[in-house]
Amino acid sequence: MTHYPSQLLERAVDEFAKLPGIGGKTAMRLVLHLLRQDTRAVEAFGNSIIRLRQEVKFCNVCHNISDTETCDICANLRRDHSTICVVEDIQDVMAIEATQQYRGTYHVLGGVISPMDGIGPSDLQVQSLVERVETGDIQEVILALSPTMEGDTTNFYLYRRLSDTGVRITVIARGVAQNDQLQYTDEVTLGRSIVNRTPFVVSS
Amino acid sequence: MTHYPSQLLERAVDEFAKLPGIGGKTAMRLVLHLLRQDTRAVEAFGNSIIRLRQEVKFCNVCHNISDTETCDICANLRRDHSTICVVEDIQDVMAIEATQQYRGTYHVLGGVISPMDGIGPSDLQVQSLVERVETGDIQEVILALSPTMEGDTTNFYLYRRLSDTGVRITVIARGVAQNDQLQYTDEVTLGRSIVNRTPFVVSS
Repeated sequence: MTHYPSQLLERAVDEFAKLPGIGGKTAMRLVLHLLRQDTRAVEAFGNSIIRLRQEVKFCNVCHNISDTETCDICANLRRDHSTICVVEDIQDVMAIEATQQYRGTYHVLGGVISPMDGIGPSDLQVQSLVERVETGDIQEVILALSPTMEGDTTNFYLYRRLSDTGVRITVIARGVAQNDQLQYTDEVTLGRSIVNRTPFVVSS
Repeated sequence: MTHYPSQLLERAVDEFAKLPGIGGKTAMRLVLHLLRQDTRAVEAFGNSIIRLRQEVKFCNVCHNISDTETCDICANLRRDHSTICVVEDIQDVMAIEATQQYRGTYHVLGGVISPMDGIGPSDLQVQSLVERVETGDIQEVILALSPTMEGDTTNFYLYRRLSDTGVRITVIARGVAQNDQLQYTDEVTLGRSIVNRTPFVVSS
């Protein structure tokens, strides 16, 4: 049992150790680092987290995290508002934005259907997606969920919910990743990459 | 370049990424974890760190971190106040306390002499150690610094500063660690463990 010389220290270390992937020794190291910093710097650290949690907003259209009622992407008239890319969470939005290959809008589900974890469609932003497709001028819904059993289940569920609307429904391509070695690629991915082969194009 | 959907989010992630050993991706993961927690839990986290930094005290005798002017160890009359164990920082105090093998007091230097890093004796709590030995009824000073060149330099410097007082000066034993394999122990440690061998005692 660790004997702390200070309750203030113990509480701070305990709080850090609640974070995922942060053990007791790392927590202690981080707290002692903060103790050596300026009081103002430590206040800035603590307040940035408290303010984020207190003032955080989620876009009333796509549910992405946002500082305003409607996020920058949904409010941007130069984006293609007829295309919705459905993702699990905000990290996926950031990852796709970083590719600079997509100019449509997003819809953040907030997870995938997972009966094992007790997560059903009503726990996700499914209804608002259906309403966006039914009421808006939407041409295409791109399903960009994780290539897992839960992701596939969710894709299938969303397909059933949206197929009546007549919207075009696509999924992101699955195949061998850039710089992957074929011999180490799993059978399902490799098989799919052969079935879904595309014409060879020489870029000029 | 990462494009954040929210400045509040970006600021919180940046603050986390300033911590040693925490990269951008880990910072993002930790912040998103906090976003999913209760507002109260996040306030408790942030405030525990701010309060620690604002209210932290250091013992006016041994310089260990403390919630009171004099730390629990220095204020404890059942400890042996004639023995001072000199350590680098408060983690060392906690490590030695955890062994339950020491009943004396401590003196936290706040580092070791390191000319390369520009740390000299005046940057450490050396003067107050000398004063404790000169004015108190001190029988023994145990030097428990890191077994490094800087630790050895500091040991030698403290020895010179304290030798006139006539106090007994000892250093913690260096030797093979419990469960270490001899063939993988470095030469200096193994050599020292032979020179400083102790009588074999059968515990009853």
